[in-house]
Amino acid sequence: MNILGLDVGGANTKTAVLKDGELNEEIFYFPLWKRKNRFKSFIKQVIDDASPDTVALTMTAELSDAFHSKREGVEFILDSVERSFGGGIHVMSTDTEYISVKEARKNYLKVASANWAATARYVAQKYGTGILVDMGSTTTDIIPVKDGRVVARGKTDVERLQSSELIYTGILRTNIAAIIHTIPVKRRGTCVASELYATTADVYKILDEITEEEYICDTADNRGRDDTCCMARLSRVVCADREELRAEEIKEIASYIRRKQMTDVAEAIKKISVETGIERIYACGIGSFLAEEAAEKTGLTDIQGIDISPASALIGLLPKP
Amino acid sequence: MNILGLDVGGANTKTAVLKDGELNEEIFYFPLWKRKNRFKSFIKQVIDDASPDTVALTMTAELSDAFHSKREGVEFILDSVERSFGGGIHVMSTDTEYISVKEARKNYLKVASANWAATARYVAQKYGTGILVDMGSTTTDIIPVKDGRVVARGKTDVERLQSSELIYTGILRTNIAAIIHTIPVKRRGTCVASELYATTADVYKILDEITEEEYICDTADNRGRDDTCCMARLSRVVCADREELRAEEIKEIASYIRRKQMTDVAEAIKKISVETGIERIYACGIGSFLAEEAAEKTGLTDIQGIDISPASALIGLLPKP
Repeated sequence: MNILGLDVGGANTKTAVLKDGELNEEIFYFPLWKRKNRFKSFIKQVIDDASPDTVALTMTAELSDAFHSKREGVEFILDSVERSFGGGIHVMSTDTEYISVKEARKNYLKVASANWAATARYVAQKYGTGILVDMGSTTTDIIPVKDGRVVARGKTDVERLQSSELIYTGILRTNIAAIIHTIPVKRRGTCVASELYATTADVYKILDEITEEEYICDTADNRGRDDTCCMARLSRVVCADREELRAEEIKEIASYIRRKQMTDVAEAIKKISVETGIERIYACGIGSFLAEEAAEKTGLTDIQGIDISPASALIGLLPKP
Repeated sequence: MNILGLDVGGANTKTAVLKDGELNEEIFYFPLWKRKNRFKSFIKQVIDDASPDTVALTMTAELSDAFHSKREGVEFILDSVERSFGGGIHVMSTDTEYISVKEARKNYLKVASANWAATARYVAQKYGTGILVDMGSTTTDIIPVKDGRVVARGKTDVERLQSSELIYTGILRTNIAAIIHTIPVKRRGTCVASELYATTADVYKILDEITEEEYICDTADNRGRDDTCCMARLSRVVCADREELRAEEIKEIASYIRRKQMTDVAEAIKKISVETGIERIYACGIGSFLAEEAAEKTGLTDIQGIDISPASALIGLLPKP
């Protein structure tokens, strides 16, 4: 009995495969807005490699601007999976329940960007009460669970952006210009350029918190992922280059951005903790190191790092055969 | 006697040609970060078409991430122009003086992003005293001139970002996520997605302040420039689509972003007006309508729209033959 958990994102598709009792996870960088016409064969390959008996599916990729609308995106992704897999497909909904592909087509908004629901439901079942903080490459989910149930206020992305349960900030792909408007350079406040000159992956690479191998997204200028290239990109954010700034000054810029991003996450955690009265934090995702620090910053002390992803949660939530 | 004023930007190259006493200006969309290897033949074509006796040059394109450093960018642009034009080339410097190509090579930081110096010097000579507010597709220059002289505090881009003389915000190319972090949607504050989902051109097209023909930059999703496409892009900024939001709601989002961008420019104008004691505004650029409104918002009343660009200013500043 092989099971495939499939989490289709706009930039990365994440898989978990349970085979002979062993779980294996993988991340495939597949930017849909660039390669949409190759998506169906990509998914076929993923499914063929896993040769599953059951597929559990969730997605966020329907929001990609490869699609005119979420409806089109959801249908395209459902079509792609159905075409490659004839067996049972379970689609996670924002009600934290599985629904069939047929139901998902009828209620596309229920399966659009529902991957948070898988992780949150799993955490609720396993840990009971706490706030899940899942900090990924692009976004951060902050979801309260209580007495074994998910008690999120938002369901759609729009509602979740309003409730602070979705913070559109991540460890790799986030444009620095979207995080911060002013950075001190040589001790003077300096407005930032509103281009896509550098991303958070450059910040965390420079600060030695991710490796080149963990820098699994495009670079803003299509150059390398070594520190020299990362520093050139980060200098450009304040319209400078590596000849105008010393390495130490660029590191200070990186630290400043890190602090701002961490504070943004901390504020959202604080808000949800105060509103729900929940003071336990479960942090996961490639940015869990920053999520844990953010939780500490709010004064919370009951913080636990856990190893869970939407793809593996999908498998854990299937009814036992 | 033909004269070519050449303002090489990272996204647009702007030309002014004075021929038989008549001035003609053109904008060529040439995104250097995409087509660097075709730049030399592009510049040759521009110069051949103008067949000038004299070329006056300025640039901002050296900051493009097509180049490792500003030094490399300046040299590449100087090389490209020199290769296509054997006559006299005058390069504008941040001292608001022309220097030779040879001097420019020696002092590359003096000619890097110096196009503001051309316009400001021209305005100083023609109008004496005032604050020039040049709001373009990507950036806004706010430069004080007094008694016929440019009295800017910043010279390099970094210094100008510190002095508020350069605000990295414009009417067409600016990523909405770099302008604003929260937008009201159905009366609830909604965090914005940090992707490049929409740009200011979408906002001003939806608000009927630019036409499709004036929308002279790429769209974020490579789709059309009509209102339907612009609205789809702007919806995506709050992770919605056109099925979730009514046209009226999307227009409200556009107005809200417009107001924030206008306020950002107004704050910088106010700062410079207070610091210099200058209360007269000269507004130009494709965003002059917003620049004038921003100046009014600060309480200033002596506001004049003028028709000047760096490329045409370059010609006006050449010594008369």
